[in-house]
Amino acid sequence: MTKTLRVGMIGCGFMGKAHSNAWRQVNHFFPELPAQVQLTAICGREAAAVERARSLFGWARAETDWRTVVAAPDIDIVDIGTGNDTHCEMALAALAAGKAVLCEKPLARNLAEARRMLAAARRSGAVHMVCHNYRRIPAVALARQMIQAGELGGAIRHFHARYAQDWLVNPNFPRTWRLQKHLAGSGAHGDINAHIIDLGRYLVGEIKEVCGMMETFIKERPLAEPGTVPPQAAAGGRKGKVTVDDAVSWIGRFANGAMANLEATRFGLGRKNHITFEINGDKGSLYFDFEDMNRLKFYSANSAAGRKGFTDIIVTDREAHPYMRRWWPPGHLLGYEHTFVHTFADFIQAVADRAPVHPTFLDGARCMAVMEAVEESSAGRKWVRVPAVK
Amino acid sequence: MTKTLRVGMIGCGFMGKAHSNAWRQVNHFFPELPAQVQLTAICGREAAAVERARSLFGWARAETDWRTVVAAPDIDIVDIGTGNDTHCEMALAALAAGKAVLCEKPLARNLAEARRMLAAARRSGAVHMVCHNYRRIPAVALARQMIQAGELGGAIRHFHARYAQDWLVNPNFPRTWRLQKHLAGSGAHGDINAHIIDLGRYLVGEIKEVCGMMETFIKERPLAEPGTVPPQAAAGGRKGKVTVDDAVSWIGRFANGAMANLEATRFGLGRKNHITFEINGDKGSLYFDFEDMNRLKFYSANSAAGRKGFTDIIVTDREAHPYMRRWWPPGHLLGYEHTFVHTFADFIQAVADRAPVHPTFLDGARCMAVMEAVEESSAGRKWVRVPAVK
Amino acid sequence: MTKTLRVGMIGCGFMGKAHSNAWRQVNHFFPELPAQVQLTAICGREAAAVERARSLFGWARAETDWRTVVAAPDIDIVDIGTGNDTHCEMALAALAAGKAVLCEKPLARNLAEARRMLAAARRSGAVHMVCHNYRRIPAVALARQMIQAGELGGAIRHFHARYAQDWLVNPNFPRTWRLQKHLAGSGAHGDINAHIIDLGRYLVGEIKEVCGMMETFIKERPLAEPGTVPPQAAAGGRKGKVTVDDAVSWIGRFANGAMANLEATRFGLGRKNHITFEINGDKGSLYFDFEDMNRLKFYSANSAAGRKGFTDIIVTDREAHPYMRRWWPPGHLLGYEHTFVHTFADFIQAVADRAPVHPTFLDGARCMAVMEAVEESSAGRKWVRVPAVK
Amino acid sequence: MTKTLRVGMIGCGFMGKAHSNAWRQVNHFFPELPAQVQLTAICGREAAAVERARSLFGWARAETDWRTVVAAPDIDIVDIGTGNDTHCEMALAALAAGKAVLCEKPLARNLAEARRMLAAARRSGAVHMVCHNYRRIPAVALARQMIQAGELGGAIRHFHARYAQDWLVNPNFPRTWRLQKHLAGSGAHGDINAHIIDLGRYLVGEIKEVCGMMETFIKERPLAEPGTVPPQAAAGGRKGKVTVDDAVSWIGRFANGAMANLEATRFGLGRKNHITFEINGDKGSLYFDFEDMNRLKFYSANSAAGRKGFTDIIVTDREAHPYMRRWWPPGHLLGYEHTFVHTFADFIQAVADRAPVHPTFLDGARCMAVMEAVEESSAGRKWVRVPAVK
Repeated sequence: MTKTLRVGMIGCGFMGKAHSNAWRQVNHFFPELPAQVQLTAICGREAAAVERARSLFGWARAETDWRTVVAAPDIDIVDIGTGNDTHCEMALAALAAGKAVLCEKPLARNLAEARRMLAAARRSGAVHMVCHNYRRIPAVALARQMIQAGELGGAIRHFHARYAQDWLVNPNFPRTWRLQKHLAGSGAHGDINAHIIDLGRYLVGEIKEVCGMMETFIKERPLAEPGTVPPQAAAGGRKGKVTVDDAVSWIGRFANGAMANLEATRFGLGRKNHITFEINGDKGSLYFDFEDMNRLKFYSANSAAGRKGFTDIIVTDREAHPYMRRWWPPGHLLGYEHTFVHTFADFIQAVADRAPVHPTFLDGARCMAVMEAVEESSAGRKWVRVPAVK
Repeated sequence: MTKTLRVGMIGCGFMGKAHSNAWRQVNHFFPELPAQVQLTAICGREAAAVERARSLFGWARAETDWRTVVAAPDIDIVDIGTGNDTHCEMALAALAAGKAVLCEKPLARNLAEARRMLAAARRSGAVHMVCHNYRRIPAVALARQMIQAGELGGAIRHFHARYAQDWLVNPNFPRTWRLQKHLAGSGAHGDINAHIIDLGRYLVGEIKEVCGMMETFIKERPLAEPGTVPPQAAAGGRKGKVTVDDAVSWIGRFANGAMANLEATRFGLGRKNHITFEINGDKGSLYFDFEDMNRLKFYSANSAAGRKGFTDIIVTDREAHPYMRRWWPPGHLLGYEHTFVHTFADFIQAVADRAPVHPTFLDGARCMAVMEAVEESSAGRKWVRVPAVK
Repeated sequence: MTKTLRVGMIGCGFMGKAHSNAWRQVNHFFPELPAQVQLTAICGREAAAVERARSLFGWARAETDWRTVVAAPDIDIVDIGTGNDTHCEMALAALAAGKAVLCEKPLARNLAEARRMLAAARRSGAVHMVCHNYRRIPAVALARQMIQAGELGGAIRHFHARYAQDWLVNPNFPRTWRLQKHLAGSGAHGDINAHIIDLGRYLVGEIKEVCGMMETFIKERPLAEPGTVPPQAAAGGRKGKVTVDDAVSWIGRFANGAMANLEATRFGLGRKNHITFEINGDKGSLYFDFEDMNRLKFYSANSAAGRKGFTDIIVTDREAHPYMRRWWPPGHLLGYEHTFVHTFADFIQAVADRAPVHPTFLDGARCMAVMEAVEESSAGRKWVRVPAVK
Repeated sequence: MTKTLRVGMIGCGFMGKAHSNAWRQVNHFFPELPAQVQLTAICGREAAAVERARSLFGWARAETDWRTVVAAPDIDIVDIGTGNDTHCEMALAALAAGKAVLCEKPLARNLAEARRMLAAARRSGAVHMVCHNYRRIPAVALARQMIQAGELGGAIRHFHARYAQDWLVNPNFPRTWRLQKHLAGSGAHGDINAHIIDLGRYLVGEIKEVCGMMETFIKERPLAEPGTVPPQAAAGGRKGKVTVDDAVSWIGRFANGAMANLEATRFGLGRKNHITFEINGDKGSLYFDFEDMNRLKFYSANSAAGRKGFTDIIVTDREAHPYMRRWWPPGHLLGYEHTFVHTFADFIQAVADRAPVHPTFLDGARCMAVMEAVEESSAGRKWVRVPAVK
């Protein structure tokens, strides 16, 4: 019970804030965890910003060189919450140093990087996880339980998902790092399509082949003034090329025969963080919408005649729903940040147990394989088989 | 199969249109009815208007004196769809003439009238019905079946209903007949509260005692220009007193111990025909909203742990849902007017069988007894026991 | 006003019932139409069945040979509501006879047939329409008005639609004519995908290229006992091959640059007639769900800061919403069958005016061109350019 | 910036957990607060339990005598989260000791106690607040802003609210302290009706007169085994009397003429923490449901014709919505516990500024005056004027 796990967090932006909160909160709500978390070091490139983050988010010390964090003897866990172009290098170094590694999604910029990370993780024997936090929305975790228990029947027919945001609709929104391929890897694809691919894999199974299209609606945008939150256009009115996708839409097949239809967009005006999926099996269906994240809609063919319909389950039951006994009475909702607390709780348990914890780097690499297949498909205007990652 | 029932309809406004449609439609969708309806005569006060209605709504002849209709030997059914101040006199005459009578709700202006109508109906032995058409919304009929079958459990705890419209919010809406007590009897009370009282009686049981308040928010309105549709203010800017309620809100107790909470208003801005009710039993709950009238939400305490929630039943299943086998495939919705077709189908069957059909004049009178108790309660600022109507 | 249009209806099944109702109802609710409809003849293959339909649906005479109907001098309008394999031949004959033609969707079994029908229609100069009735759901007609008025902005980014039903989930549902290619042309594709393709074309514009997949989940089904409603398996337990698609999922591009993502399935367990679409423009978005067909959700980027969101418009306003002044007060809902009444009203007006009325056979043929491109794409596993239909 | 405020928290149950979390979180998300919170002491009656709470919730020391906490020189703020029977005594002592006081709702067991607390607070000059946390749900805070800004118009017509839970439906749920009048003061009334009364006062104004009924559906329940969470019946099967209400339903009038209709119940089967209210003004309406707490539905009469409807505002906009800039991007939801963080942030600011902060003890006492009036009304079956609290 008195074991301590000391965390070094790299990144102090949006994910730094969300992760820090989860590290701080997890022991307060998961009292039976076998280890106490210590927020040992947070790391960012700019000294002033990282010191602000340290103080605000509750870390013991601030660092500006991630190599120091990775090498520090008083760090057990390295949490990588930086831009996608840095994940691979950092993870390799952290794993080489014997640290447990939690890495934000997407695991890397491309499949080659992801494979290197997976190989390193296996070599090291360390606990590794990619932070697909939406798996641990209680409603999603419940969906998984239900599917595993056969409540949707023996055959899944459809996985139909859409992840829509709208923050790029305005053509004057500036070209931040997220809109440049060499920094972000991709656009809506890596940022949000990755999430629904992971949910599809988690809930339905492996994806076999894909055919997709990626679009960039606005080809040029004002250059961004560095360091502004929210992002502002730089003075002078110069523009730069957008080199990532604004939206991606694709169809595919799961290994088990289910049809896949997914779309991710930053141009879904009015949709803020609208992750919806519907899964149709031969005995049941599920529907989820993140903007109503405490609920899961479940249709069961087994209900009595005339009483069938989608049941609106408020997933807040302490006895019956995943993770809920840690929190509040029924009907007292959870929010976005709780998905990280749940993820980190399971991660801590795994680190303490030296046991694997999903989604592993294998999951991250397989997600990346699907993503790369979609990209190849879009570029080549053809169906592409998802490369195997073993 | 070849029996014919000849209808005389009194009234050619909104209800004339809705009833005419149902008379025309009913045999086309209820082929097994033992009688064919004939739209024999429609009656209104103004010759030109009634002739227009006759032609448009499909009646054989137009009349301007309701006594002619009531006395006509070629009329079997008298359908009263006129203003509330005329129901009693017309019904008495029609019953005396041996006609089957279908009367719009509220049955009368007051309980005394309603009692007279009930007595006359009993004396005559004719089939009589008050047109509380919302009982035969398939979702409501299903609710009734479920409650009767015990799906809500042995004890009902709450009937919580609201009927909100918003057509009086504008203070310049003119003072039509509906806003004058001597013509309408009451305002929101008789027009829409009557409907939810009837639903409460139909679904939960008799109401024992009540305590309510009635309000008239706008005390004076522009005089109405006669005959304008939609209503227009008369030139000259003169105003007249509003002598009926704009809204009524009340609490009460059912004989079976359930608590009643009802509200009816014409000032529910944004609500158009928003009839909602929730019924909470000790084993199940129901929720209904007329603006989504093809659905019934059902919560069952018997569902499996972790799978409980309100099930959104789309009440369009041909095999399992009341009235639905006459219409379209599942998911192909019905609308407002179908409630009249269902009502008239059951009425025709009853007339052919010389059998009672709910809601009878007894139901209409009991509804009126509740209404009168609410009025007395509001005037006297006290609880009032609902008078017995046997 | 006294002009008469005499209709001959071919087909007496589900569509026969829906169309007959609309022919009967249209003059009652659209009083200003310049012609009175007469239900002159209904035609079906089986004498007993068509006589039953004649009597039930209100037609003057029954016919068993469609050629008689098409040739009859007392018929002005031929309404084709039969199986897809007969549309072309019947329409050609009717047009040759100088009749106005209303044909159920999909216009034909394939593009070649559709082109022939279009050419014949143009040659004849007769008024012709394909019955994509969902265009005239008031909410859809409103969506069209809004888009035309620029309320969604200058650029449409996404048309994301799904049409899900679930009547084939049970593998023991028998192999009716709808599951055989030579009779139906295709499965979910022609039956329901056709509808959302038409909605996409109506609302967003022409579709340029497509890439899709079609699946048949259940390859064999019990043979159907002829003439059973609902369909029953024949005795003996023999099975037959299903030769049409159970589901189709596809992506594509509109000529105006919008992305298309559509899916149609008969395996969407729990979905009955679930036509949903979302359209995202750069100033507004729309969402529609047929199972809630009286509503349209509208997001406007022009709303005040902090007040933005999807507005749930109940499309029942007599003054402001298409077709609604013919019906009932606000909040009194319409249903499925009203879509046909609206369609036929516009058709009658057009026939009287000898004016074109959308969707014309050109629309039907263009819809068919998209459908055929999706089929070719699915068969060849490739992107396909939609053939031009001029 | 470096000021420190040291908190002593009395109570270590559900509210202890929720409050502790907020004290821990507030400085991390409200960086501009002028004081840092220290979780100095937590107090409970049982040494083992309070030590567990101390450790789990992050407090510096554990106490078992609340008088020690109240008197401690190193405590600036006393947070009272205990049973209702103790609020008065503790608050009086804390105020006498010069502490700022935050007290859970309902403020006291009755109006007399509440008046004493209010007088003491005024005498002391200390900052005092009653923890009606639901005022600071962002959607509720937005509702308040909108009403204050006149977006609902000059006249409010209706406040229609229901707070339904269902944890007492099972008659075998044991008789905990919450079901005994001498400990809890009342049942659903003080526990949840208090919340919607406070919301009514906050949003619409003072309530002038009331008429209500209170019911106890299950008069006896199994005795509770002490200390069990969730509560268990004691062995032996003995029962005890339930001396509080299970449900309360009432009508009333606001000073500004609006009609009030409220209901609070623990027998609303299927409803978990279902706080709903609708407010109808003459220019706008609002609807809120706590089980969908990140949203506010707003109908504006000012919207364009044909575009009116309830707008579903997702209240997560950093720029435009109360409290949201502290948290996550749009569409990333908040939960129940955030209401406390917002409340405490405003309280800390007020303590630092020595300024009043709503809801004050005056608000708490006025809420109690309404509650007591409802109780008197129910007991006497009559309308009761709400006593003035100045």
